[in-house]
This record gives sequence, structure tokens and C-alpha cells, in this order.
Amino acid sequence: MKNILGRELPEYIEGFGEVVPFKGAFSNMGIKEKKGVKVSTVSPGENKVLNSIDEALDKAGIKDGMTISFHHHLRNGDYVINMVLDAIAKRGIKDITVAASSIFPVHAPMVDHIKNGVVTGIYANYMSGPVAEAVSRGELKKVAVMQTHGGRPRAIESGELHIDIAFIGAPTADTYGNINGVQGKSACGALGYAVPDAEYADKVIAITDNLVPYPACPIEITQIYVDYVLVVESIGDPNGIVSGTTKITKDPVGLKIAKMTSEVIKASGLVKDGMSFQTGAGGTALAVAAELKEIMKNEGVVGSFAAGGTTAYIVEMLEEGLFRNIFDVQCFDLKAVESYRDNPKHQPMSASMYGNPHNKGAVVNNLDVMILGATEIDVNFNVNVTTSSSGVIMGGSGGHSDTAAGSKLAIVVTNLMKARLPIIKDSVTTVTTPGESIDVIVTERGIAVNPKREDLIEKLKATNLPVMTINELKTMAEKMTGVPKPIELDDKIVAVVEYRDGTIIDVVKKIK
Amino acid sequence: MKNILGRELPEYIEGFGEVVPFKGAFSNMGIKEKKGVKVSTVSPGENKVLNSIDEALDKAGIKDGMTISFHHHLRNGDYVINMVLDAIAKRGIKDITVAASSIFPVHAPMVDHIKNGVVTGIYANYMSGPVAEAVSRGELKKVAVMQTHGGRPRAIESGELHIDIAFIGAPTADTYGNINGVQGKSACGALGYAVPDAEYADKVIAITDNLVPYPACPIEITQIYVDYVLVVESIGDPNGIVSGTTKITKDPVGLKIAKMTSEVIKASGLVKDGMSFQTGAGGTALAVAAELKEIMKNEGVVGSFAAGGTTAYIVEMLEEGLFRNIFDVQCFDLKAVESYRDNPKHQPMSASMYGNPHNKGAVVNNLDVMILGATEIDVNFNVNVTTSSSGVIMGGSGGHSDTAAGSKLAIVVTNLMKARLPIIKDSVTTVTTPGESIDVIVTERGIAVNPKREDLIEKLKATNLPVMTINELKTMAEKMTGVPKPIELDDKIVAVVEYRDGTIIDVVKKIK
Repeated sequence: MKNILGRELPEYIEGFGEVVPFKGAFSNMGIKEKKGVKVSTVSPGENKVLNSIDEALDKAGIKDGMTISFHHHLRNGDYVINMVLDAIAKRGIKDITVAASSIFPVHAPMVDHIKNGVVTGIYANYMSGPVAEAVSRGELKKVAVMQTHGGRPRAIESGELHIDIAFIGAPTADTYGNINGVQGKSACGALGYAVPDAEYADKVIAITDNLVPYPACPIEITQIYVDYVLVVESIGDPNGIVSGTTKITKDPVGLKIAKMTSEVIKASGLVKDGMSFQTGAGGTALAVAAELKEIMKNEGVVGSFAAGGTTAYIVEMLEEGLFRNIFDVQCFDLKAVESYRDNPKHQPMSASMYGNPHNKGAVVNNLDVMILGATEIDVNFNVNVTTSSSGVIMGGSGGHSDTAAGSKLAIVVTNLMKARLPIIKDSVTTVTTPGESIDVIVTERGIAVNPKREDLIEKLKATNLPVMTINELKTMAEKMTGVPKPIELDDKIVAVVEYRDGTIIDVVKKIK
Repeated sequence: MKNILGRELPEYIEGFGEVVPFKGAFSNMGIKEKKGVKVSTVSPGENKVLNSIDEALDKAGIKDGMTISFHHHLRNGDYVINMVLDAIAKRGIKDITVAASSIFPVHAPMVDHIKNGVVTGIYANYMSGPVAEAVSRGELKKVAVMQTHGGRPRAIESGELHIDIAFIGAPTADTYGNINGVQGKSACGALGYAVPDAEYADKVIAITDNLVPYPACPIEITQIYVDYVLVVESIGDPNGIVSGTTKITKDPVGLKIAKMTSEVIKASGLVKDGMSFQTGAGGTALAVAAELKEIMKNEGVVGSFAAGGTTAYIVEMLEEGLFRNIFDVQCFDLKAVESYRDNPKHQPMSASMYGNPHNKGAVVNNLDVMILGATEIDVNFNVNVTTSSSGVIMGGSGGHSDTAAGSKLAIVVTNLMKARLPIIKDSVTTVTTPGESIDVIVTERGIAVNPKREDLIEKLKATNLPVMTINELKTMAEKMTGVPKPIELDDKIVAVVEYRDGTIIDVVKKIK
């Protein structure tokens, strides 16, 4: 069968189940049910602190076939996933599904566990590095499930993704399981992606390298969700957890794109008091923030909030009074961690509050302007951020689909060509985000507006910006690069791309 | 049948259901299930703000037989319950169950709704005033269910108490339903008792008299739980919401009891670094806090946390460094509200985190010393704080049973006689808190220790405190007052007293 975007899907996938095809960004709404949760009660005098991972695995009742979960707040510095999987493998446990909000190059040892049948399933919102490559080569027994930052909490809350044991890396934990991410040698900032795991897993184990006396202060995830506190030497490498500083690009092309993007934003009429904004941590995305900052300053505009993964640039905008608040689900750099820790205006949000389409309104629903990236874009504005031009998994939606769906103005910023390949194609290798959610594409050589946004096309006509159709943009690129040969992939499906509402927007095939 | 305390209970009560008898404070633990929740999803662009209560009732689908809930953070200044019930009554709706965390004299108009069959059921953790008296006279159609502050979230989370519509008085709300209790003309401080309602009701309506632009800051209950924001002129009378100041007793008897109590605490060996403490807002209870403060200062002790409903005295102890933190579920006075708003060490806790026995460990489980009141105490240390000596409902557990069960040293402080009646009796009119949870009773003329606390009896023997058996204490009082005649009550059951774990510890009979 085909879904509404014309992507070919099987009706059933072994190891995944029935495939419900994507039918449009808001076609699967209405009354939804969050599942019931089993809780093991704790009486006064009981001890939650454990000192060995084997004791923790015993207490949590680890066994073959379980789904275990992890958050990615420790990013490429994370020691927790490898530590837990090694201990599980040593016991001879098999057939584990790893539900990690993201997987990074540091998780390379998981490849051996995949080969040995310890890990046979993966759920992730984003994956890059050796594990992603192993999945692309077809080494994982079941299909991997690629979710979004808002889709993951939806799946967990609805029971679609049932977690047997959540392992929550905790930069600070007290003896009764209250945890925060802002203190300790492994401080990472906000813990938004860990919240659904804590709330819905059968068993929750906080793993910390900074055990503090009761009560921890502040508390991000409370004692009522945590069964055990496992104390270890180290949960991560500080150098990999947060970057020292995130930097604006110095590349003139990136700066040009940022400048043009800021003009699009200005022309859209959204730069006004109460405006809201989100951008990623990439160099061009940050350059857009820098341009927007100047516009807001010049016009004396005070925005309502900036959201998302947070960087020093966004913190500076808060501190300079350009936004009243930040909503933070994760911190990208040290300044963001400090601001989140010290500034009450820098507020937390859980992954569900950030982007879950099936709660009573996520923060993304209130976004005005969203700056997004792309690996490929098709002529219907569908965006791929999941696979590379050679078809290998090298990312995933993260919050891409969530913010695109929620925001009033979703702008993809990208070079028109990358590695001598055009970005705009007739068909993308993988659809991550549907074109209906994308409003504008800004490249250094031209700007394409989604035809459904006639209002915006009119507004941009009044500027000097190089607005053209997406086909014109594609042709321009192809004149320089030639039309690239389509990549050849195996027929075997190695991953499904789950849209935020749980329907399937695409599948990823094995590389040849 | 009789429960473990010998209280006579029917096996089934019409309008309530099967009666599960109380079997001991921690007899009903293990694996418990929190129920699933239905959520109406909200897409971008939808509006949550409503300007008329009728529109809110329409949107929420009010109908005969529903259970609607309220929190009591606006205390005796609350306008919300009366406002909502009046609007419901005007529609001719009948057979409503009101699940309010507490009911106060200000809710007197509810008596007419009870008489007219608009309100036929009540759940409350505490009730005083005309509604409580009407229940005692047998005017409510169904039996009222008296819960505890920890038992209520347990019942809501488990599904035993299903809420169709929660009406949450919100001193501040933004346009998307983020709310806090610390800003606006009706500021009341912490909103801990409203959290389970927000999380588990089918529909949640925030009612505010201070609508602010998105996003509110701080946020205590988030947008993902709130369906609608109803804006009204006023949600309460500031004079009734918080008292200007809570005051230490000036009564010499109360001061003497407080002094003796502090000596008991000292002798117990619990005054040491990391100690935790809770007391109520009554004059004698506050006097105990003042005495304890001096002891802690003299001994250079730094406690871990003070908990509970919070007063200026507890805030001062935090500010003077005598405790590292406060856990706050509700604020009793303006200084507590300000501290909760401004001091990050003054941390929130939901009602569930405070006292629910069926989560993974409530804050009460970590309490060392708890100061409690009593209306009557029997020779087995069972305490009544539900009914007066004439059998009329004039209170309820609130957090009494929860903190008594959780704390290491639960001390009841009381005058030996009140209104020329002895406090200690062979049998109390109503059991609120089981004797097994009470460690010591301190009166101005003598101290009785629960015989199971042999360790404490030994420790107190080394002091000059007037320690005696509870029967000696009873005899001493009766010598002065005579043995009071037992009160006569009707056979009709007007309320059940639900222990925190959902079992029935006693019933309340109709007054004659």
C-alpha cells in the first residue's frame, strides 16, 4: 500500500506489527487514552540505594525479551547505555529492545550486542554513528523504529511503547530518587526526555555519580517515580555531555542564508510583541538567531518564549529581554545549563509538553517561527533528515516533525548543494517530515515557498528576496551538479519512520 | 463485621459500595495500578480561553450524576465551589458528587444544593461548618467519604474516585492553561492538592481571575493537563485565602505542652543533622516549632527538610539555615506564599508526593518528627480528629493519618481536658488515625507513650518528664471532670472514614 505521500509501505512488518499509514499531520487526533501504570509501593524505612548494577538488574527483574529505555541528555558523553548493556550481556540475556531517545557514536559497543542477539530491537528519535550504520546494513534482528521527540512520549504514554525498565542517567540523585540534571560532575541541564520514561516504565532506576542527602534541590523528576538509585563512579564524560560553546557559522554561504531567512521572518509579519521562536544548535541556525536578535532589538520587540534544545545564544536573548521565557527540554552548552539552573524564567518542559500531539496542547503548538535543517527536500516540500544521500541512517526527526507541525512558519535553511549534490530532488530517500508542515525553504541562491502559503508568497513579493518555485530551485541546482543517479537500496526494510502521531510516514531500506 | 480496631462496619453501604475493613497501616501495599486517562487532544490554533461558566459547563459536557472536583487552596476565601454549583443548579442538573479536597464554612450555600438534590455525594479530606453539619444531620443522599490528603490522590490515581470534571481555582493562568498559585490578587501559594485532579480528571477547567499572556512563569500545573481556561472576576476573598500571620499560642497551658514536647523530641535522639519535621498551623503546634528551633540552634543542628502546610515560622527556620529545604503542599500565610514564590529551597510537592501510600514512597515516609492534634484519643492511642465530642463532623484527617503513618515519632499534643471534657476515653467517637501510628501523647499534666515504643519509654525515663500510662492519664482527667456520658447517635451511617490506603477505618453516624 501507499500512504498519503505516495511512500510504498507493507501492511504488516514482522517484529513491528500492523502498519498504519500516515494520512496527514493532524488526521489522527481526538480522544486518546494514556495507559495505566503499575507501581511498586514503598513503605517507610525501605532503602532505594543500590551499589551494584547487578543488584539493580536483579531488583528490576531483567529478563529475555524486555524493553529497556534511556534518555540522551548525556549525548556523546553517555556511559549509561554501554554500562547497562554490558552488564545485561554478561548475564546471557537476549532479545532486548533498546528504547533510547537518541543514539550517538559513543554507543558503538552496542553493535556487538546487536550481532550477538543481546539487542534485537531499537526505538530512537535520532541515531548517528556505528549503531545507525549497523541498522542500515540490516544487522538488527527487528526493524528499528524511528520516532520523533513528541512521538516518543506519545507512544510511551499510550502504551504502544511499553518500557519494562527505564535506566535514567541522573547527574544528581538523592537517596530517595529525587533527581536533577544541573548539579554534579556530569551536569547536563534539563532532563525533559526522561520524564515519560519515569512516569510510565514498570521499573525506574536512576543511575547517578552524585548521590546527595535527601532531599535533592532542585528536583526535576521526583521520588514518586523512581524505584531504585544506583550509584556508580561515572555516568558520562563531561566533554561529550555538553559542548563548551555552540558557535555561529563563519561560512559566508551560511551567513547569507541566515540573513535571507531573517528577512523572510520579518516579511512574514511575525516579528511582533509576544512572538515565539525556536532554532537548533547548528551554525547556520544560530546565525539566524543572531540576525533575528538584531531585528527584534531594532524594532523593540519582546517575544513570549524561545523553545527547544537551548544554547548560549538563546540564553543571551532571554537575558537581554528579547524573550520573556525559555522552554527548555535539553541544554546544548554550559551557558544553557547555568541559565536553566539559575534563572526562573528559563523553564523546563517534558518531552510530552514539548511535542506530544496527543496531550492537551504541546508547546510546539504555540511556536511562531521554527528554523529547521534538511538532508534532502522533494518538490512537495517533504524533508529527509533521517538518511544520507547514500541511504545510510545518520539522524532522524528529533523535534523536526513536531516543531514543523506546530509552528506558524517552519523554515528549512540549507545550502542548495552539499558535497556536489543538489538538496532538492524529485523524491527524497526517506520522508521524515511531511511537506504540508514546511512553509519555506531558504537557500543561498533562492527561496521557495510552499504553494499553500499564498499569503506568504504575496508578502515576499514585496521584498527583494529571490523567491521562486521549488522546481526552479531544483533546476538551478541541477544545472550546476547534474541530476544525481538514484541510489540503489536492497528491498529489506531495516527501519520504519513513525510520524509523531504513530502512523508510518516511510520505511528505510537496507543499504547494498 | 468489625475491622482490626474493633469498629463495627457494614459489609456494604448503599451509594458507596463494598466495605473493605482496615487491617493495619501498611497491610495494603505491594503492586498497585494507576488508571489510564482519556485526553482530548488540542491542535495548533485551538483556543482554550472561555469567558462564561455556562460555556465551560457546555464544553465539559456537564450532566446528571457526574463527579466534579475542587481543591481547597483558597480555603475559607474560596468562591469557586459556590460559583460552579450555582451554575450547575441553575441548569437543573441533579445528583452531582462533589470531590473537594476540603470544605469550609464559606461553602454554606452547598447545603441548599444538598437539600435540592443537586449535590448527592461528597468526598473530602476535611470539612467544617454548615456542610459538615448538614452531613451529620443525614441530609446528604449518599454517605460522605472522608479521605486523607494522601488517600485522595491514591483514590484518584487508582480510579476508585473517578473525576468527570475538575474545576481548578487558578490565581494565575495563561491562555493555554499553564497555572500557578503565587501571582495575582488571589495568590494562595503551592497548589499541591490540585495536581491529581489535573492529571486524572476527564476534563480540566482552570478558573482564574488573573489571565496572563503565554507562558505563565512559574508554572505549577502545565498546559498538557488543562482543557479550558475560564476567566472570572474573582476566584476568592484574599482575606479568607491566607491568614496574614499564623501565631504562636499565648495560652500558658499550650506553651507548657510545647515545652514538654520539645523535651520529648530531644530525648528521642532525633535532633541531629539531617532531621526532618512537620507541624500544623495551630498555636500549640507552632509553639513546638519555636521550642525546637531553640534546641536546634543550641545544638548546631541542620535539618534536611520541614514539610507540610507551611507557615511563617517554618519559613524562618529555613531562612536561618535550620533546615536545608521545605517541601510545601499548601501555604498557610503570606510569608509562606512569598517564600515559596521566591526561594528555590522552598520546594513544591503534589498531594501524591506528600502522602500517597501507593506511590514509590511519599515525603511523609521520610519524616522524623510529626506534631499532631486530637479531639479525642482512646486508650489504644486511636485518634479522632473527624467528629466533635457531640458526634458532629468538624474536621477530618487532612494529613493526620498520612504523617502519623510515615513519621518516626508522631506526637499528639493536646490539653488533657477541653470544655470540661477529658480528651482520653475508652473509645473515641470516630477513629481517624489508628493508634499503631501514634507514638506519644503530650498533655500539660502527663505524657503517655505507646507501649510498643519500649525504646522511647526507656529514653524518657532518663528525663524528668511526667511519663505515665495512658490509663493513668485518663484516670487523672476523669478525676477532675468525671466520666462523661457516652453520646447517643442514630444508627444511620452518614459518612465513611477511609484510611489512606482505601480501607475503611470507621463510619460516622447521624446525630440525634
